[in-house]
Amino acid sequence: MLKLVKARRTIRFFEQKPVPEEVLRHMIDGARVTSCAGNMQQLRYVVVTTPDTAEQVFAQTAWAAMVRPKRNPEWGKNAAPAYIAVLGPSDAAPIIHADAGAAIQSMQLIAEANGLGSCWLGAIQREPLRKILQVSPAQQVMYLLAVGYPAEKPTSEDVSAGTSLRYYLDDQDVLHVPKLALTDVARWC
Amino acid sequence: MLKLVKARRTIRFFEQKPVPEEVLRHMIDGARVTSCAGNMQQLRYVVVTTPDTAEQVFAQTAWAAMVRPKRNPEWGKNAAPAYIAVLGPSDAAPIIHADAGAAIQSMQLIAEANGLGSCWLGAIQREPLRKILQVSPAQQVMYLLAVGYPAEKPTSEDVSAGTSLRYYLDDQDVLHVPKLALTDVARWC
Repeated sequence: MLKLVKARRTIRFFEQKPVPEEVLRHMIDGARVTSCAGNMQQLRYVVVTTPDTAEQVFAQTAWAAMVRPKRNPEWGKNAAPAYIAVLGPSDAAPIIHADAGAAIQSMQLIAEANGLGSCWLGAIQREPLRKILQVSPAQQVMYLLAVGYPAEKPTSEDVSAGTSLRYYLDDQDVLHVPKLALTDVARWC
Repeated sequence: MLKLVKARRTIRFFEQKPVPEEVLRHMIDGARVTSCAGNMQQLRYVVVTTPDTAEQVFAQTAWAAMVRPKRNPEWGKNAAPAYIAVLGPSDAAPIIHADAGAAIQSMQLIAEANGLGSCWLGAIQREPLRKILQVSPAQQVMYLLAVGYPAEKPTSEDVSAGTSLRYYLDDQDVLHVPKLALTDVARWC
């Protein structure tokens, strides 16, 4: 399990082939039973696989601020073919964001276990997305998860506290993601 | 993977035996490489296994509002022996709560894969916990994760929208957790 969690990296470039609907269904099935505050289950999901709608959704996203424009996917070339919109109340409290994070991590790991990659997107145009996906004003699109077969192989390296945490592309166009070492993020008592 | 995600249930009653330090280390190792906003890695962890400190931490928690007092663990009888405090900035934005939720789900799944149970606690006395764990005023204890070997076997059942989502204890003292069916939480477009 730890191996799978550590193997997962955010993917931004994708193969141009459809995502099996069964895997998307499994991802939602995992999300809906993930821990949530008071078992209130306030999250809802819109799975976008129709190319026309997916293209509209993609147009409302921003990618990888630190490696622009090289890691900016292009529609029809290397953009994710599927998107899962995570909906919550329009006035979602921080705890609902925590619920969303947990549900998204379940989905990312189920994707990974099925050979798919994903990218959790928070830099999104929420109001246009709400209209595109016909979401009621009482709800908002909290986050998007882009899903598809990976067309890149990012790596991560452990670094010490104080080192830059900016991810970067090397000469071979491989994305490197610095992660703080275990001893720098945890203490025992 | 979906099987593991679906098998995990929140555990509130625990065996009174220590949690292997290696598993706790693996949980943190998974948490630290979990997706986070802009790869900023703002979360830190305090792992509490010393009985004296664990008892003090336990005293600052509240459990299972809907099945009080029957599912309230007692220290030294069935309370979790280990706690992981998830620390974040004292002024954590909602996105940091999302980061915390994702990291906590990684930890819960790694615990589950190692035969351990866990309970994500949000109803906690943050200021006393901050002092007990000697956390600087610039940080807060966002959440706690109680960890141990399960001493109960909760079950979950799919229900339709409109049904009560309150969890409950049956005649045999088994906890039942209603979860909205897949078709009630997701739509395709």
